[in-house]
Amino acid sequence: MQLHLSTWKEIEEYLLRSRGIIIPIGSTEQHGPNGLIGTDSICPTAIAGKASLEMDILVGPALTLGPAQFNLKFPGTISLRPSTLISVVEDYVLSLAGQGFERFYFLNGHGGNIAAARAAFQEIYTKYSLRAEESSSPRCRIMSWWEYPKTNSLRLSMYGEKEGMHATPSEVAMAQYVYPEHIKEVRNVEWKPVPSEYLNSHKGDDHFDAEQHRRSHPDGRIGSDPSLAKPEEGQQLLETAAAEMLEDYKKFLEEE
Amino acid sequence: MQLHLSTWKEIEEYLLRSRGIIIPIGSTEQHGPNGLIGTDSICPTAIAGKASLEMDILVGPALTLGPAQFNLKFPGTISLRPSTLISVVEDYVLSLAGQGFERFYFLNGHGGNIAAARAAFQEIYTKYSLRAEESSSPRCRIMSWWEYPKTNSLRLSMYGEKEGMHATPSEVAMAQYVYPEHIKEVRNVEWKPVPSEYLNSHKGDDHFDAEQHRRSHPDGRIGSDPSLAKPEEGQQLLETAAAEMLEDYKKFLEEE
Amino acid sequence: MQLHLSTWKEIEEYLLRSRGIIIPIGSTEQHGPNGLIGTDSICPTAIAGKASLEMDILVGPALTLGPAQFNLKFPGTISLRPSTLISVVEDYVLSLAGQGFERFYFLNGHGGNIAAARAAFQEIYTKYSLRAEESSSPRCRIMSWWEYPKTNSLRLSMYGEKEGMHATPSEVAMAQYVYPEHIKEVRNVEWKPVPSEYLNSHKGDDHFDAEQHRRSHPDGRIGSDPSLAKPEEGQQLLETAAAEMLEDYKKFLEEE
Amino acid sequence: MQLHLSTWKEIEEYLLRSRGIIIPIGSTEQHGPNGLIGTDSICPTAIAGKASLEMDILVGPALTLGPAQFNLKFPGTISLRPSTLISVVEDYVLSLAGQGFERFYFLNGHGGNIAAARAAFQEIYTKYSLRAEESSSPRCRIMSWWEYPKTNSLRLSMYGEKEGMHATPSEVAMAQYVYPEHIKEVRNVEWKPVPSEYLNSHKGDDHFDAEQHRRSHPDGRIGSDPSLAKPEEGQQLLETAAAEMLEDYKKFLEEE
Amino acid sequence: MQLHLSTWKEIEEYLLRSRGIIIPIGSTEQHGPNGLIGTDSICPTAIAGKASLEMDILVGPALTLGPAQFNLKFPGTISLRPSTLISVVEDYVLSLAGQGFERFYFLNGHGGNIAAARAAFQEIYTKYSLRAEESSSPRCRIMSWWEYPKTNSLRLSMYGEKEGMHATPSEVAMAQYVYPEHIKEVRNVEWKPVPSEYLNSHKGDDHFDAEQHRRSHPDGRIGSDPSLAKPEEGQQLLETAAAEMLEDYKKFLEEE
Amino acid sequence: MQLHLSTWKEIEEYLLRSRGIIIPIGSTEQHGPNGLIGTDSICPTAIAGKASLEMDILVGPALTLGPAQFNLKFPGTISLRPSTLISVVEDYVLSLAGQGFERFYFLNGHGGNIAAARAAFQEIYTKYSLRAEESSSPRCRIMSWWEYPKTNSLRLSMYGEKEGMHATPSEVAMAQYVYPEHIKEVRNVEWKPVPSEYLNSHKGDDHFDAEQHRRSHPDGRIGSDPSLAKPEEGQQLLETAAAEMLEDYKKFLEEE
Repeated sequence: MQLHLSTWKEIEEYLLRSRGIIIPIGSTEQHGPNGLIGTDSICPTAIAGKASLEMDILVGPALTLGPAQFNLKFPGTISLRPSTLISVVEDYVLSLAGQGFERFYFLNGHGGNIAAARAAFQEIYTKYSLRAEESSSPRCRIMSWWEYPKTNSLRLSMYGEKEGMHATPSEVAMAQYVYPEHIKEVRNVEWKPVPSEYLNSHKGDDHFDAEQHRRSHPDGRIGSDPSLAKPEEGQQLLETAAAEMLEDYKKFLEEE
Repeated sequence: MQLHLSTWKEIEEYLLRSRGIIIPIGSTEQHGPNGLIGTDSICPTAIAGKASLEMDILVGPALTLGPAQFNLKFPGTISLRPSTLISVVEDYVLSLAGQGFERFYFLNGHGGNIAAARAAFQEIYTKYSLRAEESSSPRCRIMSWWEYPKTNSLRLSMYGEKEGMHATPSEVAMAQYVYPEHIKEVRNVEWKPVPSEYLNSHKGDDHFDAEQHRRSHPDGRIGSDPSLAKPEEGQQLLETAAAEMLEDYKKFLEEE
Repeated sequence: MQLHLSTWKEIEEYLLRSRGIIIPIGSTEQHGPNGLIGTDSICPTAIAGKASLEMDILVGPALTLGPAQFNLKFPGTISLRPSTLISVVEDYVLSLAGQGFERFYFLNGHGGNIAAARAAFQEIYTKYSLRAEESSSPRCRIMSWWEYPKTNSLRLSMYGEKEGMHATPSEVAMAQYVYPEHIKEVRNVEWKPVPSEYLNSHKGDDHFDAEQHRRSHPDGRIGSDPSLAKPEEGQQLLETAAAEMLEDYKKFLEEE
Repeated sequence: MQLHLSTWKEIEEYLLRSRGIIIPIGSTEQHGPNGLIGTDSICPTAIAGKASLEMDILVGPALTLGPAQFNLKFPGTISLRPSTLISVVEDYVLSLAGQGFERFYFLNGHGGNIAAARAAFQEIYTKYSLRAEESSSPRCRIMSWWEYPKTNSLRLSMYGEKEGMHATPSEVAMAQYVYPEHIKEVRNVEWKPVPSEYLNSHKGDDHFDAEQHRRSHPDGRIGSDPSLAKPEEGQQLLETAAAEMLEDYKKFLEEE
Repeated sequence: MQLHLSTWKEIEEYLLRSRGIIIPIGSTEQHGPNGLIGTDSICPTAIAGKASLEMDILVGPALTLGPAQFNLKFPGTISLRPSTLISVVEDYVLSLAGQGFERFYFLNGHGGNIAAARAAFQEIYTKYSLRAEESSSPRCRIMSWWEYPKTNSLRLSMYGEKEGMHATPSEVAMAQYVYPEHIKEVRNVEWKPVPSEYLNSHKGDDHFDAEQHRRSHPDGRIGSDPSLAKPEEGQQLLETAAAEMLEDYKKFLEEE
Repeated sequence: MQLHLSTWKEIEEYLLRSRGIIIPIGSTEQHGPNGLIGTDSICPTAIAGKASLEMDILVGPALTLGPAQFNLKFPGTISLRPSTLISVVEDYVLSLAGQGFERFYFLNGHGGNIAAARAAFQEIYTKYSLRAEESSSPRCRIMSWWEYPKTNSLRLSMYGEKEGMHATPSEVAMAQYVYPEHIKEVRNVEWKPVPSEYLNSHKGDDHFDAEQHRRSHPDGRIGSDPSLAKPEEGQQLLETAAAEMLEDYKKFLEEE
């Protein structure tokens, strides 16, 4: 069930059955020579969409813009300041919390969103924690699709070390499956592994400024070979992730 | 050409041909008994999409959330504070302006966006106007699809007084055309005209708080009869608006 | 009754008779070769002052600064960022709402205020719409004096096409009537009509940055001939607007 | 010379003669049983106006709203949050600094403005201090009219201990002189001295919240007897303050 | 009793005995040729620490960063924008107020903190003053250690005119007493008195931008001779200030 | 070398030798029955202090307040909103970057800081990434002391599963070593393991609101047995962490 394709009465009825919602969150930024700029939003949107066919869950409108300042020197990248994303998440959650929603599950496709989303959650909870009267805050959770254990194993079994960190074959493959008419050709990608130290010290897209980033990664890839991507692998990844998301979401709903 | 379905190299090449971009902007709010919550985003996204098939233009990711606090007591409505939308628009424009984009055309589907979008434009220009050195700011424009003269005549010829102000048959029809599998049934809509004074003093969705708004408009319509909507009328409206948008956009690009 | 010329006990008594207040709102920006920089504040302040002699209404202190970044390259212009005006309007309204005021009527003299004022209203209402407990927000309305139908007809009958868009003879005339000792001489104003498309696409002072604005309008006028202004015409305009404002304000008080 | 009563060309010429401006800054808050709510703005505006008749100085539009939250339980009080006043002062100064103004002299009538104004000055200077390139910030100064030594002696010689801290006879007298038609009658004011410790620990209007403030000062006075005020004393005070302000302002212009 | 060296249960018990807390607040900025960059934080922290040995009071964690933009061209200076300090003070006070703390005594070591701290207090009180329901705000007070009359006399009797305004021998002496192993040598300091007008017009560290400040005060002193500082004098000053602070704090607790 | 115990000339000289600085960052929040409220600040401050005895590094003033809203119902906890910490980190970094510092290493003691610190880094870099001219941003890194592999192994070898997540014996032991006179007694701590799922879904202190948090963890521990802590183990941990930090910091300095 997609919120934007429902009427308000359908949502009113949904609230009698469930207090939870799933929100795809991605970014709009370069994804290497053949990756779509919308890749990080396309993946979680498609995973949540697939999952919503299997269980009575509500999927909210995707947040397609995130902090990606490090990619601003690649044309087409749009970056929200973290403070902007914090405001967006606050407004999103508080709007629905006022109507009875209690559990907000952000399905994430972009490492750079995690810090800002968590900061937003703490801002939201603070409002409740400072209140004198008893009150219970909504609960938020952010999970990136590649964190699900089976999905993670699958992508590594498919691409191994060439999965890399950005413009990965797994995300490119998923987007290819979703938009077959937008598969871009790429050849002769020169691949070099990225040092594990780099991966470690930049996790969560903790990258430096845009000039330096483009200098270090001239075609936009970080340690990946996205020319390996195939749409049928994307389908497998998507289905695996959708199944794992449902399990994790159910646990989140049942918590405490 | 859709930004999110392009690679950064394609955008780099596009910038050699054009400095403009079209950005659909809508809302996520109740749209009466049979209107989809996403109606205001669906319409401009579809119009821009249609137009992009006819001319070499770039369409950026849609802004699907807008200020709609007056609808917060209808489940499913998500409202951004105007200050949040201002930040989002600033980040969107300044990200792309740094890459060479110069003209930003916001195609609007929600009256409540106009004030915040214009405030954002003035915030952006202020940064340039306060600079000591010579510099030229990007230019922004927001147009609502119902402002185009032919589209406006068409919707009035179709629905007359029953077009109303919110959850209008024209927007519902357009969304029906785009999502035929999500057409909702509605019957026995009780219609009453809304006084022209009301229309006038609340234009731009200058509505009061949510409690009062739901009390005044218990099923979410304002002076409209959306049971009249038909997908084939939506198609006609969409095509007319797309053609008019292209004309207006061309003028905007050529200005000065 | 002027708030700033009253004691708090007089306001306490006024609140027993009425819950409304009128707030003149203008700007401080260049107004062409003979227009006073304060014109946009002088006009609504004088109109409200005149009206307050005829009916028991309260006039609050004028907001004399507004967003006018496009005029910053003309010395003497002071521009608030829209976000600043939003904060000012919020503080103004919430201060008085806490004392029992319920209806806030902003009488406007500057197109550039409208977007920010409306954004402010929505920010204010949002605070109420997000509350769990029942509560009713104050109501705000902004009307520009030239929107009143008789006043509008009058100025067009006086100056026709030479009324223009900025530094108009009507506003200059009104300021001349209010400050006869500050009438500035001007001769040989070269007049050219401004295209109606320009008027349309820049309504609400939706202008671009200051450098470009001064280049396009080197003496500060936009399509107007303010050398036509005469104080006695200003008096007529002022009296007409005051009468129309009273009518509109009464309706606003009685609404619902 | 009043900025709001000048044309932009007159300001352009003024800048050839001087780089300084005087800005009256006050508040809109209760001033006891017979004091006008606008007292704190009326006084510095009148002093600056008087001074501008004697020397070629420019007076900007008055800031008539300031932080006065402690008086919010007295009807008619309008309080800006300090953060709002900081933004207003920033915008005011940066607008004019971009046109060549270099010295900003805020003539103050309200103790509660001082902290926020000084915070604003430091915010403004910070922007310059963080720049890599050489640049010189504008300079700001805030002086309250009662700080001038002769004016201070005069008010104490007139009213002694009954001058008090708020709703003082000196400020009421000055407003009476400016608005003789708005002199309010008051009788039988019960006067009690306010402990010097109180004066000391609340200087700069460092008062607590509004409920407590009204409880402690039920008619709005703090240690004053404003029934002593006479317009002719107000005139004397105003003229003394105007003369002293001119001297201090000249020193400020010549500094360094 | 130091908050950071206590357990939460100890604080829970403390709240049964007292509702007050003392918060040292300083800065991190250059302090002349031999003054430590932390001087302004070291002094109030040490004074409060000393006082806490004599009476059952709670000392919160010191705020060691403050607005000091004027010193940014001296390496090692860290300056908070006033708006940042306002947020920090708000969060500090509201966190503890929610647990039952009612009186917040900021013991200050840096003139530049005063404006921002007072602005923060007014922001905090505003939240309470705008509430409809009855409620009582916490109370805040900021006192600089040199304002205590005996401490002030003592430092003047020790150093006379050479006490100066910044990098004073009294503060340097106090820091020497606290950190004897960090006494820095300095010789041949060239001393010139600073005009009393300068002192007066820059009180509360109302200084201009950093470039100009370093140009005017090339080694960081303002009218002081810190080569006179001796740790044993620092001890005397510290003990005097601690005793006076306790007295003043007790009065603050007992107020009303 | 401690910044706050240095003179500005010493920092000027340091900048000739190095462009890096280490900043301890912690929190002020309950740490269970025997943990000090300052534990999270005490640990990184002590580790950095120890390291600075072995190598020529500069340690900046510790940030002792962080986001900890989930602990606000335990007296003594002070929580910064994430947005406040973002501003503090921005001001800290930009102040020193203007003086030539290029590498900022935040040594962290509180999981709840990570999201806000990373958001702050991205805010800082954004300013550089949006600039037209070439420029290179400073680089920031945040590392928590328990992330160092040897330190992590050591604490697990010492306390095993009883290390837990909050109020851990390792951090308590370190604080005991630093403040032996403030070792608190605790007995009969009832220990229960915390499910690994809990640990996983709340990493980075991604906890919900304060009421719920205190209900779930009534004495403030999360899966830990801090009664096991011994100061001599704290010393070992501290020395191991200091050595590992130096290695990691050196790599950070040498990067690219």
